[in-house]
Amino acid sequence: MLKKFNQNITEGILYTDQYQLMMAQLYYKMGVHERQARFDHFFRQYPDYGSHKAGYCINAGLEWIIDWMQNSYFGEKEIEMLATQKTVNGKKLFEDDFLNWLKKSSSFESISMDSIPEGRTVHPNEPITVVTGPLAIAQILETSLLNQLNFQILIATKASRIKEVTRNQLLLEFGTRRAQDRGANAGIRAALIGGADYTSNVGISHVLGFPPKGTHAHSMVQLFLSLGMTELEAFQAFADLYPDDCILLVDTINTLESGIPNAIKVFGEMKKKGHRPIGIRLDSGDLAYLSIQAAKMLNEAGFTEEKIVLSNELDELNIWQIITQISEDAPKHGLDADKLIHRLTYGVGTRLITSSGDAALGGVYKLVSVQNGGEQIPVIKISETQEKIPNPGNKQVWRLYNSNRMATADLLSLQDEDIEKMHPLVLHHPNDQTKQRILKQEHLTKIEPLLIRILNEGKLVYDFPPIQEIRNTRQKDLEQLDAGVKRLINPHRYHVSLTPKLFALKNELISKLRI
Amino acid sequence: MLKKFNQNITEGILYTDQYQLMMAQLYYKMGVHERQARFDHFFRQYPDYGSHKAGYCINAGLEWIIDWMQNSYFGEKEIEMLATQKTVNGKKLFEDDFLNWLKKSSSFESISMDSIPEGRTVHPNEPITVVTGPLAIAQILETSLLNQLNFQILIATKASRIKEVTRNQLLLEFGTRRAQDRGANAGIRAALIGGADYTSNVGISHVLGFPPKGTHAHSMVQLFLSLGMTELEAFQAFADLYPDDCILLVDTINTLESGIPNAIKVFGEMKKKGHRPIGIRLDSGDLAYLSIQAAKMLNEAGFTEEKIVLSNELDELNIWQIITQISEDAPKHGLDADKLIHRLTYGVGTRLITSSGDAALGGVYKLVSVQNGGEQIPVIKISETQEKIPNPGNKQVWRLYNSNRMATADLLSLQDEDIEKMHPLVLHHPNDQTKQRILKQEHLTKIEPLLIRILNEGKLVYDFPPIQEIRNTRQKDLEQLDAGVKRLINPHRYHVSLTPKLFALKNELISKLRI
Repeated sequence: MLKKFNQNITEGILYTDQYQLMMAQLYYKMGVHERQARFDHFFRQYPDYGSHKAGYCINAGLEWIIDWMQNSYFGEKEIEMLATQKTVNGKKLFEDDFLNWLKKSSSFESISMDSIPEGRTVHPNEPITVVTGPLAIAQILETSLLNQLNFQILIATKASRIKEVTRNQLLLEFGTRRAQDRGANAGIRAALIGGADYTSNVGISHVLGFPPKGTHAHSMVQLFLSLGMTELEAFQAFADLYPDDCILLVDTINTLESGIPNAIKVFGEMKKKGHRPIGIRLDSGDLAYLSIQAAKMLNEAGFTEEKIVLSNELDELNIWQIITQISEDAPKHGLDADKLIHRLTYGVGTRLITSSGDAALGGVYKLVSVQNGGEQIPVIKISETQEKIPNPGNKQVWRLYNSNRMATADLLSLQDEDIEKMHPLVLHHPNDQTKQRILKQEHLTKIEPLLIRILNEGKLVYDFPPIQEIRNTRQKDLEQLDAGVKRLINPHRYHVSLTPKLFALKNELISKLRI
Repeated sequence: MLKKFNQNITEGILYTDQYQLMMAQLYYKMGVHERQARFDHFFRQYPDYGSHKAGYCINAGLEWIIDWMQNSYFGEKEIEMLATQKTVNGKKLFEDDFLNWLKKSSSFESISMDSIPEGRTVHPNEPITVVTGPLAIAQILETSLLNQLNFQILIATKASRIKEVTRNQLLLEFGTRRAQDRGANAGIRAALIGGADYTSNVGISHVLGFPPKGTHAHSMVQLFLSLGMTELEAFQAFADLYPDDCILLVDTINTLESGIPNAIKVFGEMKKKGHRPIGIRLDSGDLAYLSIQAAKMLNEAGFTEEKIVLSNELDELNIWQIITQISEDAPKHGLDADKLIHRLTYGVGTRLITSSGDAALGGVYKLVSVQNGGEQIPVIKISETQEKIPNPGNKQVWRLYNSNRMATADLLSLQDEDIEKMHPLVLHHPNDQTKQRILKQEHLTKIEPLLIRILNEGKLVYDFPPIQEIRNTRQKDLEQLDAGVKRLINPHRYHVSLTPKLFALKNELISKLRI
């Protein structure tokens, strides 16, 4: 724990941007600070990794942002700190009346929240998390909410893409050393939601209830060599201590001439003693070529089931390349490619935890309605770029399933619309006046509302599922997503549409502002 | 604070990789766990942002890793958790004797550390931080040390590049919303070390002693519009409340037709009341073109000194482009380009905090020596790639300054070598046998040892300088670095060389292993 750097302050309610507090004070002074306001959290674009753009995202981060909200408040210390802030001319930047109100309102107790559950597939321009509450408080929440949700969605999405390409083989996360300081923990949680099966990180594994995974490093073999011993002796020592959990890293000296032969020797000794080795790990060189060679050597020695763990700057693209190369080359070496592919395990570090190729999700938090007089009036922000105009008002998101029980579109409606009673269902393109799609109710197998009530004026009204259940949710959602949408490169575009009523409201508000 | 996710566990000493603990147990069982071992932290490559690679890095992170080490230990709870871990066959993975030793050794109290101070320029393959201590404990430290130091060096380096290209204009960090969960705080600290002048993040600003900076968001103007008021009224309200700290965001409706004219109107009113506006902020569109137009409009209204703050996906390349375009175009509009460039301020978010283009520093932690018998013997790891072979042994890093008082090379020596007594100085290329450079002592103005003792068997023997001083260190180091090395694109390569003795040792160890 960082004592010197005071995590209570740096990770508490002051984990926000200065302008949120400056706007909050303005709203206080105008007397509108307690007006009910509604903000949507959504992203406009899937992560784009350069040569390849995602076709879906996996939602993640909800449980942690709620935990943060429930433990963050304006205490004595926070208020004291804000009271020290000065204007350019030496006056107090935050005045006492405002600070008193902050201290009194103090927390996120007044916030309601609806959200799409973690693990679900989500798409651009649909509200994923919806915050309703007093204007000033909901505004202060923005920074931390974006910080926490954007990152977990980003990493869960990357993990899902990597997991998909492995053909359901085991995926191990071990990126802590290249992660972003303590951001690693959130990233690892998201990776586990998105498809990683285990992580090497000990602390977060214990807290989330996963067994941490690990083998040994090159430094272990190096150490033995330095002390006048051999790679074989290093392997023997490791296997003696961990006879039932033994994965040997075979590339410290020379993979084919030293590492694998030594591993096979040790595996033979283990077998005699009644133990079953788990496998070997390859961490450098041409991993496709070496996998084939390793499989041949292991097979010849009678070790046909032992795993081959691959690591070294892996991501979805190079795992795909490795699998493609094995599919083509393994038969030339007398190996069953499919069997080899199913004995592979992947250790993924840097490129998962940093979402290599696109290291941030551009999620935003936009005001969509505010209380005026007795009613909640819809709000819009115009932009010269049509796609950047958010969808106004209080909304629900519906997922429509076709006759094959596959998700065919997400439909945004105003909150009071009853989608099931619309005959036929008209799905408007979000921006293009000329594009729409008509669906007959009888051709749909399910219409599912995605936004679920999480917080009711600060009170938790939702049972957070365990991560294993979130992982199942993701699995189920992916099974109901067209292969084209899941395609690694140039995926088919999933439809996010508007009801006619929402589309009309959006255009009405735009026209008013453009006059 | 994340109560539910138990930061004491997830960010304490178990913030490490499982294999470190597995190796530590093996060393314990072999009885070598308390042998003095030495590990170097270094990186092999500068960050490579795609089209442009860095020519130097800025060191950062030291104070925080030391703070972490001093507050992390194997307590009851940690040992209990490790005791629950099972092997595949249901036995205890970590045995009681080892766990008892862990609990007794418990912390990093036995570790000594030398480091290059924060804020200094650092280069590939030179030890930046050197850890000496009992083998098992030094091994467990690896993950967290890499996690914390790699990230801060990465972000300090990116910030430095961005700051350099602004021509010393004010640089504001505001990336928290796109940062990696709580990694943001470390990233912001590094950004401030590297060249950002302020951050928008409130908590970390207070803890580090910087005033947080902020203006207002589009949502403020939106809110006024929704309540039936105007952009002008929004600006007036903001200026009334913050008359001496007023920066107006002018692109919510239309920058040139609405935002800037309204800002000028408000600035006029402020001036009459005796206040001085700070400036405007542009957050969309062609920022070079709009800067010129904004300057013209502001100048015509008599506001010739007010700042123009630019933001929107800025990084070193597009700031450079904006400045280049202004240099060419401003005179055509009757403006002094240099004066305009010096009224610009930059707000940088996503691309700084994620080190856009290269989101991880590949820093490693390699065993370089270990106690055997009475002496500390040098260790090497061979690799088929020549550049990946680390420099063995206990070393010092020297910076050599030429007759112009510019840094001309960093020289790695063995620890007992006296560089000042070598006539002439021979600088070996780290890998290429045929390349060397000869320097005469009398042509050097300074020979400076870079590694400083920080921890002496757990005891802090170093005074951490305040961040402002670290910022000055960086500034001074950059002034002593050739312009070619600092060049944005395709920088000249700074020399990191070996003494003949170190070079000979490296080759001797390689030959032994290759036999």
